[in-house]
Amino acid sequence: MPASLGELAVRFGCELRGDPGRRISRVASLAEADGDALAFLAEPRYRRQLATTRAAAVVLDARNADGCPVAALVAANPHATYARIAALLHPALPASPGIHPSAVVGAGARIDASASVGPGSVIGCNAVLGARVSVGPGCVLEDGVVLAEDVRLVARVVLGRDVRLGARSIVQPGAVIGADGFGFARDGEAWVKIPQLGTVSIGEDVEVGANTTIDRGALADTLIGDGVKLDNQIHIGHNVHIGAHTAIAGCVGISGSTTIGRRCQIGGAVGIAGHLSICDDVAVTGFSMVSHSITSPGVYSSGIPVEGAHVWRRIVGRLKRIDTLAERVARLEHAHDTGEAADADERQD
Amino acid sequence: MPASLGELAVRFGCELRGDPGRRISRVASLAEADGDALAFLAEPRYRRQLATTRAAAVVLDARNADGCPVAALVAANPHATYARIAALLHPALPASPGIHPSAVVGAGARIDASASVGPGSVIGCNAVLGARVSVGPGCVLEDGVVLAEDVRLVARVVLGRDVRLGARSIVQPGAVIGADGFGFARDGEAWVKIPQLGTVSIGEDVEVGANTTIDRGALADTLIGDGVKLDNQIHIGHNVHIGAHTAIAGCVGISGSTTIGRRCQIGGAVGIAGHLSICDDVAVTGFSMVSHSITSPGVYSSGIPVEGAHVWRRIVGRLKRIDTLAERVARLEHAHDTGEAADADERQD
Amino acid sequence: MPASLGELAVRFGCELRGDPGRRISRVASLAEADGDALAFLAEPRYRRQLATTRAAAVVLDARNADGCPVAALVAANPHATYARIAALLHPALPASPGIHPSAVVGAGARIDASASVGPGSVIGCNAVLGARVSVGPGCVLEDGVVLAEDVRLVARVVLGRDVRLGARSIVQPGAVIGADGFGFARDGEAWVKIPQLGTVSIGEDVEVGANTTIDRGALADTLIGDGVKLDNQIHIGHNVHIGAHTAIAGCVGISGSTTIGRRCQIGGAVGIAGHLSICDDVAVTGFSMVSHSITSPGVYSSGIPVEGAHVWRRIVGRLKRIDTLAERVARLEHAHDTGEAADADERQD
Repeated sequence: MPASLGELAVRFGCELRGDPGRRISRVASLAEADGDALAFLAEPRYRRQLATTRAAAVVLDARNADGCPVAALVAANPHATYARIAALLHPALPASPGIHPSAVVGAGARIDASASVGPGSVIGCNAVLGARVSVGPGCVLEDGVVLAEDVRLVARVVLGRDVRLGARSIVQPGAVIGADGFGFARDGEAWVKIPQLGTVSIGEDVEVGANTTIDRGALADTLIGDGVKLDNQIHIGHNVHIGAHTAIAGCVGISGSTTIGRRCQIGGAVGIAGHLSICDDVAVTGFSMVSHSITSPGVYSSGIPVEGAHVWRRIVGRLKRIDTLAERVARLEHAHDTGEAADADERQD
Repeated sequence: MPASLGELAVRFGCELRGDPGRRISRVASLAEADGDALAFLAEPRYRRQLATTRAAAVVLDARNADGCPVAALVAANPHATYARIAALLHPALPASPGIHPSAVVGAGARIDASASVGPGSVIGCNAVLGARVSVGPGCVLEDGVVLAEDVRLVARVVLGRDVRLGARSIVQPGAVIGADGFGFARDGEAWVKIPQLGTVSIGEDVEVGANTTIDRGALADTLIGDGVKLDNQIHIGHNVHIGAHTAIAGCVGISGSTTIGRRCQIGGAVGIAGHLSICDDVAVTGFSMVSHSITSPGVYSSGIPVEGAHVWRRIVGRLKRIDTLAERVARLEHAHDTGEAADADERQD
Repeated sequence: MPASLGELAVRFGCELRGDPGRRISRVASLAEADGDALAFLAEPRYRRQLATTRAAAVVLDARNADGCPVAALVAANPHATYARIAALLHPALPASPGIHPSAVVGAGARIDASASVGPGSVIGCNAVLGARVSVGPGCVLEDGVVLAEDVRLVARVVLGRDVRLGARSIVQPGAVIGADGFGFARDGEAWVKIPQLGTVSIGEDVEVGANTTIDRGALADTLIGDGVKLDNQIHIGHNVHIGAHTAIAGCVGISGSTTIGRRCQIGGAVGIAGHLSICDDVAVTGFSMVSHSITSPGVYSSGIPVEGAHVWRRIVGRLKRIDTLAERVARLEHAHDTGEAADADERQD
């Protein structure tokens, strides 16, 4: 869906430096754009590509506009403006309304006439699909699922009983929302399954990545706030609450009953223990372990970057004996009486 | 399926303190229960909620019974008793017996008349489905799969050739049991695939979480013991053996040919290397790495809790130079001759 | 498909020590082989099983041939030779050519007459399936997917728009290739989705494990080289490039825009940050974090093996105070003037 630079400037509130009649038909990177392509500059590391770009136009901020050799769309937030222009130029193909003849629809389901249900999908009894909902091929929606308008399940998604998704939320293939939580009571050496009676409630504008799983609550519901973005292969346990606009990268595991605040950013492969509370505006860098609650906004870490394996083995050996090392230092201090500061530290041990 | 307190006391062997005719129709938490709801108290941290609960009755142990302001079902193991009462009050809806017309059933498959096969499921040749087996929508069972009585595949489960599940086992959506193990022989710079000829044999009363994968054996079978509970997103490599009643939390990875004992508890996101042996009654806390065999029961760890990122970066910098730090301490000791203990430690390095 | 030892020796270029007419019908381990079974010896740890094996024949190298009590197939690379013989004796059952009546095929799709499309699979518009391609049950191929000859999708695989797989590549169940990458632009407290316009291009002889996910590129394509082997539950972000013959174990996460070289070996549960470059011939041991680029071939690690939990807690406590420990050592050095080497190290801090 091509557009002119003038139309884009008006629609997205940019200052245009260049020919308003120039037609743009696609987006591309600064390095590869040419002809009728629009690029963007948001991160300083790409600034040197600006000088040589052959794009038709570049979305950038005022500081970089003077260095732009081609037409410029000057925006306060070039990255977000680029994202919106890209969505306009490259719209997702709308699914054709209607229910594929191979789909199976349960009694009492209410499916809006503008909604689409793909081949082989199974819609449970009393499910509700709002306007323009798209259920791709091979999805399974158990009884009582409610999808607000414009929800999109890409393909082969499973939604358990009574799961609710807010407007415009997108679920990538293979995700499972509303499977039973991991709840068992110990009885002798065996485990007794605890019925998982809650469900999962997901807000508006949420994205759930491929093969991510979100378990249903044990008694109350698992809650995912508006605008939350979840990458692939994430595991979210039962009764977890995630605040609005929090973004979580791939392979993260969050154990049951933990609450995460708003606007948090959780890096890839982070593990978060159960029954914790993490406040708003916390960032956790990748490969870190969160095993206690976090009450102050900020950035938290516990990952250790790789070393050459031989060096690392030696470091681990030393680490495993750090207690002895500290005792040796204490003995030296004692032998030489180096003063109060050291003694104070040692008393904490 | 409501029940009276008297009926529950008899059926589950509890001492009842209260009106045996009082009807219970559901379970709820201590804080939210009211009217006809039953709550339970198993962990000390919830004890203060007992005094103000509006539940119809509470399942608890004898020590807490005196503080119960409402009817009490006194049980030796309140958590397990609660789990069983909850299952009675909130039974899983039984699937209707029969094979959905959209399912595809291979030649020679024997499906018990009381079993259920959901829409779009594919049952391979010579598969055997026992009494009351429930195969939900969108499952794929390859040839020769054998499901004992009361097995439940929730939805979109894949079982590879000849996989066997014991009675009452439950598989959550998206799980894949019996895919090829990761077996390749190096040949120059390329890899030659090794046929994976074993299968997966799963005991009775096992639960397999959503999107968990259990690979088939290379020559012999991968074995999962009775009563094992596996959370979501777990990866179990080929030829792994897991002993009865072991519970494994989400995101754990277990490499090929490792044996884990009975009654172990593996925390979330733990990584276990291949060809190891872990004895019975081992607990591993979350986010730990097991790279050697464990021969004594007990609790094992190697996770490090997060710190503020600036502090953590400084700690990592120091850790990477711990070898130098130890050498500096040794020089100090040498210079000051602090005695035999330090020398002995240093000789281990 | 049985074969004689003479046929195997000729076909796979082995020296045969034994009766060329002896028939072999299957493979088995050294310990369990008997009758008409062939075993192999590739790792020294299994050497003591050789003396007592009851196999009909053993594939091994020249150094071990003298100790073989039964017929020997002497090969330069016994493991790879065994893999090829096993594939000959135990061929995968070829799927019957043809499109199952329950499959749904979009307009313009070109499906070779020798290809097989299983029950319930959905083939998008303009997809191309080459000779002998096998699409198992329950797969979803979006529009424009191209599968070269002999590609095998085992079951319930999702391939996004325009994804391409090279000849002989195998995808295990539950894998999702070509879901949207995790691309969002921050706008105030919310996130704006960035259209993911690239696709995924996969080379020849690649294997993709169960429930592994490979995201489509944002602008350019995500690239997986020839002969790459990916285990289960791996997450590969958008625009990642993986060089030929690299093998990656289960549960690994690779963030977006990272490039990994040829012939690398990545251990289980490793986390690799985004926008990095890892050169050819790098090995990373399991449970390590790669957060910076690697420019030299070699083995890299950062995992820490478990300890008893009480010991580990003490070690972590000391580690968290390592900065103080180093300061105490510096004070001791200063007090006693232990010389230049220590001062030089301290200056780096």
